Amino acid sequence: MLGNVTSSPSDLRDVGVRELLNPTSVAVVGASRKVNSIGGAILANLLRDGYTGRIYPINPQTSEVQGLRAYSSVTAVGQPIDLAVIAVPKSAVESVVDDCIFAGVRGLVIISAGFAEASEEGRQMERRILHKVRAAGIRMVGPNCMGLLNTDPRVRLNVTFTPIWPPAGNIAILTQSGALGLTILDQVKRLNLGISSFVSVGNKADVSGNDLLSYWVDDPRTGVVLLYLESFGNPRKFARIAPEVVRRKPVVAVKAGRSAAGSRAASSHSAALANLDVAVDALFEQAGVIRTQTLEEMFDVAALLATQPVPRGPRVGVVSNAGGPAILLADACEARGLVLPSLSEKSIAAFRAFLPPHAGLSNPIDLVASDDPATIERSIRILGDDPNIDAIVVIFIPPLMTTRPEDVAAAIARAAGDLPGEKPIQTVFLSTQGTPEMLGSGPRGRLPAYSYPENAAIALSAAYRYGTWKNRPRGNIEVLPPPVITEVRRIICNEAAAAGGPSWLSPEGVSQVLKAIDLKMAEAREVSLEEAAVEADRLGYPLVMKAVAPGLVHKSDVGGVVLGLKTASDVRQAAGHMKQRLATAGYELQRVLLQRQIGDGVEMLIGVTTDPVFGPLLVCGMGGIHVELLKDVSFRLTPVSDRDAAEMIAKLKSAPLLEGYRGTPPADREALIGAILKVSALVQAVPELMELDLNPVMVLPPGQGVIAVDGRMRIRPSMDG
Amino acid sequence: MLGNVTSSPSDLRDVGVRELLNPTSVAVVGASRKVNSIGGAILANLLRDGYTGRIYPINPQTSEVQGLRAYSSVTAVGQPIDLAVIAVPKSAVESVVDDCIFAGVRGLVIISAGFAEASEEGRQMERRILHKVRAAGIRMVGPNCMGLLNTDPRVRLNVTFTPIWPPAGNIAILTQSGALGLTILDQVKRLNLGISSFVSVGNKADVSGNDLLSYWVDDPRTGVVLLYLESFGNPRKFARIAPEVVRRKPVVAVKAGRSAAGSRAASSHSAALANLDVAVDALFEQAGVIRTQTLEEMFDVAALLATQPVPRGPRVGVVSNAGGPAILLADACEARGLVLPSLSEKSIAAFRAFLPPHAGLSNPIDLVASDDPATIERSIRILGDDPNIDAIVVIFIPPLMTTRPEDVAAAIARAAGDLPGEKPIQTVFLSTQGTPEMLGSGPRGRLPAYSYPENAAIALSAAYRYGTWKNRPRGNIEVLPPPVITEVRRIICNEAAAAGGPSWLSPEGVSQVLKAIDLKMAEAREVSLEEAAVEADRLGYPLVMKAVAPGLVHKSDVGGVVLGLKTASDVRQAAGHMKQRLATAGYELQRVLLQRQIGDGVEMLIGVTTDPVFGPLLVCGMGGIHVELLKDVSFRLTPVSDRDAAEMIAKLKSAPLLEGYRGTPPADREALIGAILKVSALVQAVPELMELDLNPVMVLPPGQGVIAVDGRMRIRPSMDG
Repeated sequence: MLGNVTSSPSDLRDVGVRELLNPTSVAVVGASRKVNSIGGAILANLLRDGYTGRIYPINPQTSEVQGLRAYSSVTAVGQPIDLAVIAVPKSAVESVVDDCIFAGVRGLVIISAGFAEASEEGRQMERRILHKVRAAGIRMVGPNCMGLLNTDPRVRLNVTFTPIWPPAGNIAILTQSGALGLTILDQVKRLNLGISSFVSVGNKADVSGNDLLSYWVDDPRTGVVLLYLESFGNPRKFARIAPEVVRRKPVVAVKAGRSAAGSRAASSHSAALANLDVAVDALFEQAGVIRTQTLEEMFDVAALLATQPVPRGPRVGVVSNAGGPAILLADACEARGLVLPSLSEKSIAAFRAFLPPHAGLSNPIDLVASDDPATIERSIRILGDDPNIDAIVVIFIPPLMTTRPEDVAAAIARAAGDLPGEKPIQTVFLSTQGTPEMLGSGPRGRLPAYSYPENAAIALSAAYRYGTWKNRPRGNIEVLPPPVITEVRRIICNEAAAAGGPSWLSPEGVSQVLKAIDLKMAEAREVSLEEAAVEADRLGYPLVMKAVAPGLVHKSDVGGVVLGLKTASDVRQAAGHMKQRLATAGYELQRVLLQRQIGDGVEMLIGVTTDPVFGPLLVCGMGGIHVELLKDVSFRLTPVSDRDAAEMIAKLKSAPLLEGYRGTPPADREALIGAILKVSALVQAVPELMELDLNPVMVLPPGQGVIAVDGRMRIRPSMDG
Repeated sequence: MLGNVTSSPSDLRDVGVRELLNPTSVAVVGASRKVNSIGGAILANLLRDGYTGRIYPINPQTSEVQGLRAYSSVTAVGQPIDLAVIAVPKSAVESVVDDCIFAGVRGLVIISAGFAEASEEGRQMERRILHKVRAAGIRMVGPNCMGLLNTDPRVRLNVTFTPIWPPAGNIAILTQSGALGLTILDQVKRLNLGISSFVSVGNKADVSGNDLLSYWVDDPRTGVVLLYLESFGNPRKFARIAPEVVRRKPVVAVKAGRSAAGSRAASSHSAALANLDVAVDALFEQAGVIRTQTLEEMFDVAALLATQPVPRGPRVGVVSNAGGPAILLADACEARGLVLPSLSEKSIAAFRAFLPPHAGLSNPIDLVASDDPATIERSIRILGDDPNIDAIVVIFIPPLMTTRPEDVAAAIARAAGDLPGEKPIQTVFLSTQGTPEMLGSGPRGRLPAYSYPENAAIALSAAYRYGTWKNRPRGNIEVLPPPVITEVRRIICNEAAAAGGPSWLSPEGVSQVLKAIDLKMAEAREVSLEEAAVEADRLGYPLVMKAVAPGLVHKSDVGGVVLGLKTASDVRQAAGHMKQRLATAGYELQRVLLQRQIGDGVEMLIGVTTDPVFGPLLVCGMGGIHVELLKDVSFRLTPVSDRDAAEMIAKLKSAPLLEGYRGTPPADREALIGAILKVSALVQAVPELMELDLNPVMVLPPGQGVIAVDGRMRIRPSMDG
């Protein structure tokens, strides 16, 4: 019943992106003499930045552009063209595309805007173009994009209209906003980071983030991938592809549009708890993608991961020539799961040998206003040798009078070169003068430099979490056997068909489904008010009575749940009172559900909600009626592995309850993980299941399993029936 | 029984700081020819920066320093000296101070280090110096500091050793770290912010943050105060002074050392929930001080408050020439309590008149890659006129080809000049080129400019919260009448004296104290196990039984609380079982407490814990046994006003429970506030009370008040007895 999670190999196949980024010839359609027109700027960039292939300006109005022979159309070139960049008014785009296909062009970049992003008419035009391109078997970037850039010295392709040629390096960048793409290139250059390739994806009609990830994972020039995303085209494909990429290279993402989720009709706890941003967070966490809160953070993290090894652990050693910023760094580290441990005896002795007597020898090491390059170099070497330290941060406030910052930078660079290969080093130069050039002069090459101590801590903690994710074993998911799937779908589809549209499954249906997937539910009988006392004697005590009334969803809100019934007369009396209470609240109590009360156990919730874009999300959290108020929950996209389930539970504030908290016995955590896996398997196998709330799920003492006490499922008619 | 919270006038009296910052003559003791010695650098700064008063270098080894006549000692000057700056080896400081006092110097700045921060010997030396200075009636900054700076053109004092002379402006800065002070001056200059005065306080032996606040509150040149703090000398004095300052000028603080709190023996919920950083947060929130998470945020907030009005509301209007960064800004705003409302009909019509048809007319307004200065200017004017908008943000990605950023900046500056006086404007220039000079060219002068959209949002939300704090009415606190104080202290001191040291008050003592302050507690009787059934019949049912056993603190953890006892036989049986359970857990059940069970109500907690530095902290939160797990609590320093109490409650995730949540009736929120005020009054009047846990406090339906169900108090012997 268990199988490994692996993505299908085809998900990771690069289909044509390599050709787009490494063309041996480029046609610029709309190439103008005016370098301040878009087509003109692109042509000028190809020329200025030394593109190594052949360039064909396409301009029907002239025979020469920017010193090159111009052609009236793509077809008129008469030579093989790998890539055509289209920067013409939108009304002309479609016929240019036809022309390109006719001429056998292998790839397209459509810069022109006015398509799906602008109007319904544009959307249709975009769709027509996409059909043509797909039929021709070629790939297309855009429309409504800013183009491509590849710094490979064998290629030197810049078909963007930015004036920036960034330094070559190992960072690949995808941006879904063209304008922001400019800013990103600008910042990358300023921060002295190096780029492998850059793609502005625009409307993502054809080439998507998933395609680019599949290319970059095998691109030897790419070590880190940065994503600026505004939407997901196919989040479930991303969920399959991204983890495979992330196991090999870090992916750092900013996802804009957190607040755009808007409100959604919330008919169950699980749905009310979810929102689009929760889904994005779940997706990134599951996939090991580093989500940063801000653009600035994205660069800070990239600067570390692009140049330094991933730290093996959370233990940071800090050396600083000033106390204040070291404290700020320590605060920021500890707030984010990093620690500043004591140094080894050997390190302390080594520091004592050359630091002034009043220097603090506890981590962070305060050099007490010393700015001697030799002291700083020696300090770094000591931290490098210290087995208690996984990562090193050097903070430096440039001295006032004597030492030159360049000398300090050179000393840091020298010491960094001799550090053990697994230990990253970061520097904080608290100066508006920026970072001295010499910082990059050592054997390690570029070293990350931050202007504020907190930024270094934020980046380091992201790198540490990434390392933890990368080193965790792959998880296992559970799969329902075919007969179980058949049985569950029979139960669900019968009711869904009868309802004719989305509807709540009957309580019997719910217990049958849970029974089919081997998830225990508290025994319950639905009976009339008159039968209640007799049935109660048959079930045994103590009992819980729950209301069954048309339209009633949150039973406990209107007094529709009574606990602790101990005798038949209790039951009779409770039924009568409940009928009155429900009548007052506008409901008719038709029948009641009687259930043996579950004793000791931890109340948890397992639920499912279906996001229109992301599909099913599984939620686990503290159960009970206050779940929405306290929001102690965690989400994952299905399928959820045992590893994911364990992480979902570990994230909860209420997790200690399961370990035995303040005198209460521990609970069967493994059984809770098992139940999550079963629900995940159910969701994967039965797309008719839209929403599920098991609340509470009582987690009993170890070895005794879990019991769902109340369950609701929302279903829709079969999509394949 | 109610009185207004006001600080005593003497708290806000400036005692000598003005003289320190505005001397008409300065002696530099340790003035050297070498400008790269500290004394030499200070003298050079006084000369370079154009100090308007008389300068007396003190150097016994020479008759001339840097072109000025040098004196062998302060006494040798023979002229009145307002300020002496001491930069000599620590062994010489004490005699220099003697000399200064003898010569009638009015104020001292001791740059020299090696005092309380370095060793016990240094601490004693510092104390001796302080005594001398106090006895002489003069003020002293430091030791171990970086000096003072006053940009007032009538003064131009720079007795620091930084090479930076910052622009004059309205920001006053206090730093507790000298090295970080350098960075702050450096950043302030880079960000084109202006400074009124700057004080590096060092060890704060005499002049403290409280003294400086008292000065700056009345300093007409100061509009915003920035604090970099590492410790509080007298937090309760700060708690009195700061709100009075903040009502007139914003105070922005970074407090380092969050993680330094360490763990503390946690013998009650309230104590376990508190830590030093919680106290700092409570203090700042209460006082209206804006606490920023990072240094960078401090500058971002200062840039806004130093140049723009405080926004009247949370409604932000955004205009951008690029979609991506506008979304990032919107996300960051909405995550921090700001909103981006729809614009008025009039504004939408005005935009429609000149924006291209596909431009979005919902806020944020996307100018769709337009970079025409006239368009941007017009857009700002429309937002200025829109009654739906309280604050304006302009985002600009510098154009690629045509418009000059300088022209855009000039257009923004023009439009900003015509905005209604109450609307702040911020700009985001997404460019490493920095901000064009022209941005400061309009009638509003400097405009805040950010490099990333998120920074603008963080600053704006801080300014908005500040405005909310500033506009709230002053709160009222409650004071216990003297006879009540006498009664409570009698109860407490009797028991404390008997115990001889810190101890828990007896259950009877707790009920007597609560009764004295008119805080209802559930009726309870402590009886022997044999008497329990008889006493139960007398009290009535349902009942709760609680264990009384030596050493037992968390009763429910070991089965020491049984609910729902309905008959005498229930009580007998429960007592027997409890005895066994406690024996298993290692406790001897000696007696039991019987209490009528409180029915419908919301379980809250009110507690007090005493921090060694901050004194008593009051905590309010969701009650019950999981309070430490869920940590849904808020803290305030005592005394707590009705306004504070309401804010404490509003901050809780569980606050909706009090308003009637999901079918449960609302609760008596006013009575809960009343109970908090009574506890606050109790704490203020009875310093013997160290710790208090009222958990749960049942908040009954409106008009029915609150009842403490369980209460514990830790007391210490009277400090004045």
